[in-house]
Amino acid sequence: MHKEKHVTSSETIRDIVIGMSDGLTVPFALAAGLSGAVSASALVVTAGIAEIVAGSIAMGLGGYLAGKTDVDHYRSELKREYEEVDRVPHQENQEVKDVFAEFGLSEKLQQQIADEMAKDKKKWVDFMMRYELGLEEPNANRATKSALTIGASYIIGGIIPLSPYFFVHQAHIALQYSCMVTLVCLFVFGWFKSKMTGQPPLAGALKVVVIGTLAAGAAFAMSKLISGH
Amino acid sequence: MHKEKHVTSSETIRDIVIGMSDGLTVPFALAAGLSGAVSASALVVTAGIAEIVAGSIAMGLGGYLAGKTDVDHYRSELKREYEEVDRVPHQENQEVKDVFAEFGLSEKLQQQIADEMAKDKKKWVDFMMRYELGLEEPNANRATKSALTIGASYIIGGIIPLSPYFFVHQAHIALQYSCMVTLVCLFVFGWFKSKMTGQPPLAGALKVVVIGTLAAGAAFAMSKLISGH
Repeated sequence: MHKEKHVTSSETIRDIVIGMSDGLTVPFALAAGLSGAVSASALVVTAGIAEIVAGSIAMGLGGYLAGKTDVDHYRSELKREYEEVDRVPHQENQEVKDVFAEFGLSEKLQQQIADEMAKDKKKWVDFMMRYELGLEEPNANRATKSALTIGASYIIGGIIPLSPYFFVHQAHIALQYSCMVTLVCLFVFGWFKSKMTGQPPLAGALKVVVIGTLAAGAAFAMSKLISGH
Repeated sequence: MHKEKHVTSSETIRDIVIGMSDGLTVPFALAAGLSGAVSASALVVTAGIAEIVAGSIAMGLGGYLAGKTDVDHYRSELKREYEEVDRVPHQENQEVKDVFAEFGLSEKLQQQIADEMAKDKKKWVDFMMRYELGLEEPNANRATKSALTIGASYIIGGIIPLSPYFFVHQAHIALQYSCMVTLVCLFVFGWFKSKMTGQPPLAGALKVVVIGTLAAGAAFAMSKLISGH
């Protein structure tokens, strides 16, 4: 039997990727930047942890509230569609036809579809939500889990580039270890991320490494410039 | 004439919101955190600018590459669908029927739709892309514009909370001005963002302010703790 293998990644993996991608990159680049301006690792650690705390809350809580907003938005549009099929059924009937006109179906068939769909109000409204408005019903319980996953992934990602600064007191030496550790992690992360989303893994891994390197390099150069070292 | 007013925000506005939302929050919280650990604004400025550079590159370039990946993904799925309508037309015909079975249309009408759609291969494939796979054709030219918009919005957002530290040399005093300026900006930003996405503006504005306050407060407390001040 023929089976289509269109790749879809689960929502949890997507959340881990979102959190870890930024978590590995931004604290890494910030620490690299500060290493160009200060000599003591302690200060880099303080700034790095402040960044990780700020970033994980902004991303996690931001994701949570965005999820809640999606749920509210879906519900208000659903209510509106139910009102409209009652109030202006002829108009909504035409909108069903318009969807199929776009795909070249005959006027006669469009009318048959619209008439048959109108028999079950719930399915009619579901159809309008999905195909006229392009809205999928969001899972209300996912918002909390999504927030925690993104926030935790950001923290785990951010601890990695920062860890050498815990052990090596001179920032410019810790930076060298941080680059090694982080670039390897970015490569491995990019590889698996691409694998899971059905992209070529090597190209995907290199892309992630290039973003991290550019961000860290630019932050380092800018800090040197400002601090005049 | 009846006209539906379902609110949709343009893609550029969405990019500005993405960039500015994180730009206002994370550099604000980082600067607040550092102000709890160091006394000189100069260091806060250096770290803040390193963060803005890192964050804008990570978000902008990340957005650019994600856009390119979407285009590649769409093209490879499109190619696969064209191959499948040639190779297993019966299967694809069934998949069209399945889409409509879900909305309670009769077997007879499902078959008519599938047969009529099969007459125009391009529209048949377009239908499968949109309604079986849920993929919209991404605009290949948007990736660059999107990257620049997100990156620039992050920089503009990030400069606002940092600006008091340019002028006030003592970090703990600059922090007070930074809180005032940034919380007002977050409120105004949240208000307009909610207006444009059709959400209640006051609730939206307060959400954004709360995220910023929590992120900054947590970063400040954590820095105090680490630095032992």
